[in-house]
Amino acid sequence: MKTNVRKKVRIGIIGGAKPSPEFRRTAYKVGRLIAKKQAVLVCGGLSGVMEAAAKGAKEAGGISIGILPGDSLKDANPYIDIPIATGLGYSRNSLVVMNSDVLIAIDGQYGTLSEIAFGFIQEKKVIGMGTWEIHGITKADSPEQAVDLALKQYFPLVR
Amino acid sequence: MKTNVRKKVRIGIIGGAKPSPEFRRTAYKVGRLIAKKQAVLVCGGLSGVMEAAAKGAKEAGGISIGILPGDSLKDANPYIDIPIATGLGYSRNSLVVMNSDVLIAIDGQYGTLSEIAFGFIQEKKVIGMGTWEIHGITKADSPEQAVDLALKQYFPLVR
Amino acid sequence: MKTNVRKKVRIGIIGGAKPSPEFRRTAYKVGRLIAKKQAVLVCGGLSGVMEAAAKGAKEAGGISIGILPGDSLKDANPYIDIPIATGLGYSRNSLVVMNSDVLIAIDGQYGTLSEIAFGFIQEKKVIGMGTWEIHGITKADSPEQAVDLALKQYFPLVR
Amino acid sequence: MKTNVRKKVRIGIIGGAKPSPEFRRTAYKVGRLIAKKQAVLVCGGLSGVMEAAAKGAKEAGGISIGILPGDSLKDANPYIDIPIATGLGYSRNSLVVMNSDVLIAIDGQYGTLSEIAFGFIQEKKVIGMGTWEIHGITKADSPEQAVDLALKQYFPLVR
Repeated sequence: MKTNVRKKVRIGIIGGAKPSPEFRRTAYKVGRLIAKKQAVLVCGGLSGVMEAAAKGAKEAGGISIGILPGDSLKDANPYIDIPIATGLGYSRNSLVVMNSDVLIAIDGQYGTLSEIAFGFIQEKKVIGMGTWEIHGITKADSPEQAVDLALKQYFPLVR
Repeated sequence: MKTNVRKKVRIGIIGGAKPSPEFRRTAYKVGRLIAKKQAVLVCGGLSGVMEAAAKGAKEAGGISIGILPGDSLKDANPYIDIPIATGLGYSRNSLVVMNSDVLIAIDGQYGTLSEIAFGFIQEKKVIGMGTWEIHGITKADSPEQAVDLALKQYFPLVR
Repeated sequence: MKTNVRKKVRIGIIGGAKPSPEFRRTAYKVGRLIAKKQAVLVCGGLSGVMEAAAKGAKEAGGISIGILPGDSLKDANPYIDIPIATGLGYSRNSLVVMNSDVLIAIDGQYGTLSEIAFGFIQEKKVIGMGTWEIHGITKADSPEQAVDLALKQYFPLVR
Repeated sequence: MKTNVRKKVRIGIIGGAKPSPEFRRTAYKVGRLIAKKQAVLVCGGLSGVMEAAAKGAKEAGGISIGILPGDSLKDANPYIDIPIATGLGYSRNSLVVMNSDVLIAIDGQYGTLSEIAFGFIQEKKVIGMGTWEIHGITKADSPEQAVDLALKQYFPLVR
């Protein structure tokens, strides 16, 4: 497994720290599907949508990377396999995007909006579920569709 | 003059690198007004809206700070008085906001969107002219109104 | 294996991009030992000491994280399992340290010196082999001793 | 005056947060001389050597820029004219160097050592007074000599 981690598609999950139970379930399902499809989950490493998605990935045997705002690895939610400390505060939002091949935005407030913006600045596909209405976002109606759309253009991935 | 720079309100101008002639004129006028009102202009230091606003400030005797993405002070447009190099790339967008007391967004693409988002993350007032339609932005109809709205809540400034 | 990655000690390898053949061999051996001892190797992800150590870790079945200065995952040397892009240039040196529990410095120029300094700023143990003579560094005479010294104080690791 | 700020040489002062009274006096004198020579002082904006040098510059009618680790302009010592917030923590040390044409190191601990290292990484001249013994540093015996050495190679400055 290990030898292939680098070759896996990285799907970034961006979203609110305090989602409704419904969006939390959505994030969890998206996380599970990412793991089942052999992709790697990237997120901001904290709570809410990030934690639900990482939990889903974990329980389905996947791997998650959490790009943290603070300088301590302990800040990561318990489902993150590879916490990365940055000490950059919210400026780390652009690093979450930089380390993802494609993004799925679920719910979210202004932090998520900044990540959607960085997604387009960095010319990445952004898939949205119940998130900001921003020109360029591809909407998905279900976790399955979101992950399918994310993986579509990244097969095969060359890295 | 010098002794008071720190006490002046800092108005951040965020906007597109390739604005229409109309928005360029708007930015220029806003820059002039910022200088006339004894405020300091903060921007990303590059071209387009940033350059037009800095030119306006310069010609009206004001001071401008340009927070650059690159690592060379030479990248700043010719009207910037205090170029600041960061070497952070687009991650510097959050620093443009961090160094402003209030923001005026003029036109703009995804870079501007990221700065609007950071504006709200950092709990700053964001005034908009022909920019993204994002919840929380206060619209202004003229350069005069934009600068008036920006200065309103910052008198007196305590720093 | 995966479930334990987060619980493993992270040993940061810092060193020159253009080491002598001897220091390259030292770095390779240190990398192998890190993997054999079930620790995770962290480095700057590029060439020289970083590449030799990552190669050693890879060939011994270990895992390596490469914290890159640029914004592309492709910049990482071929032995890095988890490349992390930062877009911060040399400012990323502090992140290499932040993501390590302990550091081993091998050879090195001014980049390595900055990482040694950040090691002490962040109150981490720094072990040295043929590197800068800086107050506070613990010298090691062999790859075995270096890795032993690194692991000593981190058993058990609580994260 | 204002119109020339950008064209002035920027001298970065790096040094300890808790210097002895002697080094504090040295920093103060260096700050005064920087101002008298029409150069701009750049520093980390906080206490100790940074504050003493900024005080010297201020009292001699000069201008100082303080590149802060935190995200609030209020963190700057009272003598800083242009505080710049970064929110980068100690990673901001490379930005202090990036925004200086030449460095003078006075006393200092590991933070200063990291800045000396970044000075050489960025190929800048580093002048030292009672600081780390690092290959490449040009020693100065007095504040006058330090500032003279700093200004020597920057006349005229092209920016």
